[in-house]
Amino acid sequence: MERLEDKIKTFGKYGDTGKGGITRLCFTEPNLQARAEFCRRCEALGLSVKTDDMGNIYATKPGKEDLPAIAVGSHLDSVVRGGNFDGVLGVLTGLEALETMIVEGIETRHPMTVLVWTNEEGSRFRPAMMSSGVIAGKFDQATMLAVKDEEGIAFKDALEASGFKGDATNRFSTKGYSAFLELHIEQGPVLEAEGKDIGVVEGVLGMVNYEIKTRGQANHAGTTPMPLRKDALYAMVAVIQYLHDELDKLDPSLVYTTGEFSGGPNVHTVIPDNVRITIDARHRDPEVIRQVVKVIESLPAEIRGCPVTYREQWARNTIDFKPDMVGIVEESTKTLGYPYKRMYSGAGHDAQYIADLVPATMIFVPSDTGFSHCEEEHTSLEQCWKGANVILHSLLALDQK
Amino acid sequence: MERLEDKIKTFGKYGDTGKGGITRLCFTEPNLQARAEFCRRCEALGLSVKTDDMGNIYATKPGKEDLPAIAVGSHLDSVVRGGNFDGVLGVLTGLEALETMIVEGIETRHPMTVLVWTNEEGSRFRPAMMSSGVIAGKFDQATMLAVKDEEGIAFKDALEASGFKGDATNRFSTKGYSAFLELHIEQGPVLEAEGKDIGVVEGVLGMVNYEIKTRGQANHAGTTPMPLRKDALYAMVAVIQYLHDELDKLDPSLVYTTGEFSGGPNVHTVIPDNVRITIDARHRDPEVIRQVVKVIESLPAEIRGCPVTYREQWARNTIDFKPDMVGIVEESTKTLGYPYKRMYSGAGHDAQYIADLVPATMIFVPSDTGFSHCEEEHTSLEQCWKGANVILHSLLALDQK
Repeated sequence: MERLEDKIKTFGKYGDTGKGGITRLCFTEPNLQARAEFCRRCEALGLSVKTDDMGNIYATKPGKEDLPAIAVGSHLDSVVRGGNFDGVLGVLTGLEALETMIVEGIETRHPMTVLVWTNEEGSRFRPAMMSSGVIAGKFDQATMLAVKDEEGIAFKDALEASGFKGDATNRFSTKGYSAFLELHIEQGPVLEAEGKDIGVVEGVLGMVNYEIKTRGQANHAGTTPMPLRKDALYAMVAVIQYLHDELDKLDPSLVYTTGEFSGGPNVHTVIPDNVRITIDARHRDPEVIRQVVKVIESLPAEIRGCPVTYREQWARNTIDFKPDMVGIVEESTKTLGYPYKRMYSGAGHDAQYIADLVPATMIFVPSDTGFSHCEEEHTSLEQCWKGANVILHSLLALDQK
Repeated sequence: MERLEDKIKTFGKYGDTGKGGITRLCFTEPNLQARAEFCRRCEALGLSVKTDDMGNIYATKPGKEDLPAIAVGSHLDSVVRGGNFDGVLGVLTGLEALETMIVEGIETRHPMTVLVWTNEEGSRFRPAMMSSGVIAGKFDQATMLAVKDEEGIAFKDALEASGFKGDATNRFSTKGYSAFLELHIEQGPVLEAEGKDIGVVEGVLGMVNYEIKTRGQANHAGTTPMPLRKDALYAMVAVIQYLHDELDKLDPSLVYTTGEFSGGPNVHTVIPDNVRITIDARHRDPEVIRQVVKVIESLPAEIRGCPVTYREQWARNTIDFKPDMVGIVEESTKTLGYPYKRMYSGAGHDAQYIADLVPATMIFVPSDTGFSHCEEEHTSLEQCWKGANVILHSLLALDQK
């Protein structure tokens, strides 16, 4: 457990905000330091380190037989003022599992690879999960290479300057790999609330994201009688209430969020004339997602004198991990005697794209108070260690298949 | 009418945005150009021009008797991307009235003064109505002189650099003046809606302004079950609905506005954890304002799991103009045969402070569609001209008192 603690503490230095968190955007100096530290540690353990043409890092321990590798990993980049666990914990527990095999002299039939996916957060270069998406054929590589950050620097140039650009022949592929495991923090409060140490992840929830707007008329707060007003904020209040009223009638495991909200003119003496919100809804069952869309489509065209418009921004279908992969993680967890829960991931992860190429699944560890993408993000060392044990046992179980 | 049109068009050049409006913040170059043009025109008419220690300009036509002067005027500064009527029309119609007296050879018993109040909008140097407030003893002069704009320039320095700083002995005073009239655009839709050309202003509505906040908990949109959420935006939706439900039970002439609204983290995948709005409420009757405050104070301490807090930001009592002053304007309007309406001003104006020193009142002209503080602000030339006629007749009636 001390060895894992040392890893977590060491990586927490790269991009340390001084307030318990890190800022480690893709290919910035702190991210490059973390990548270099990862490579140093892997080489010290005798792993062979390669990168592909998206800068993804593969650190491999050889197997006894001529078989495809089994891979485990996550990402080393973070959001702005993020925490010490999102992504990096999946890399470090994977490394910990391989280190244990090496130290304990456990030989495997398959090669074992620890993987670092480039630019998972998409905080510097949009979209999120860019590199696993390119590898899985979800995104066009040329388009992704051309993506620029806020300062106008292209991903392509940042990649080349990083020193981590490798060869396309090194890419993750269905031929070279037979399975992928990703450990991640839950980023939600469910495991903690239910007293579980491990989440056995069955898949990633489907989602839709809509933008909704109301249009009113800006007028002076002191001189416009109430009946003559078109208040875009008061109209949006009715929209949000309507969404809650209708969506709460659907399946209770549906989650939906009005996360973005803005508008104008935003002056205390002026009636608001435009308000915009986003609504993000997630559920395992595509039928429930269809019902959500129906509710949005049933919004009145005009509320409280203000036109209401909506537009789908994006959507994804539910990804179900292969039952035998999920079963291997579940069995390993049971063998170790850890309290666990089968659950779906509400957030997106690299594993959802890689599941298109090879059998893949995920392991969740609890997030204290559900906090994530913030400096307060925390998972106890013991829970991290339990997660690493589940990885080790799952890798060894996969090796026997 | 052509003479007034020329005035309006000429002054519209100073700070012209090219989109039908002006930006003429206090003591910026366009504001200084407008002030200089005003002084040139006054001197050409033989008026004596003085300024006081706040940069207020007084252009006076002598009277036949040794009596205090009767003053008329408004302001020449604007908000950012404001219109061609707010403030400037009160100055130009005052000047037009005096010019008519001069051209027509109408002599008066009292001296007649056209007044330009400095920094009425408060867009560059807060607060609004700064200089009439200092003259009326509402604001401490030393504090006002120290007020800085966004670039750190003190009002004092901008005043000195303007060339318009005069002597404190030139100030508007109860001794030197016997009445003050201010013509202004309505900045609301009531006159237009009721087909009236003139608003006979009885006073300025009292108001309160509160800030209201809700505090939630930021969590991941995809991973936090609905029952475990503390959504500050959904809580604020209940707050706004509650305010409307309760305030709509009060007097129907009450106006209230939730004009400012903001919060965070404002990310589509994160539950909002803080939302802030302002509520501005105005009514003639202080009892109704007290009822509004009671409604705000009756907000539950916690709504939808989120603490709700409120704080008074500012308040003012209703100002009632003296009935005989209002009566003079009403009689003049009746004599001219213009359709008019007795009404209160929902917005604040210099006249409300000056009413503490001498009998004062206001004349409103219609705002097309109620638009104000925007480039679309408009009043027809005929309505402006009718306003100038009401001023002329009211000044002459005051002169006979």
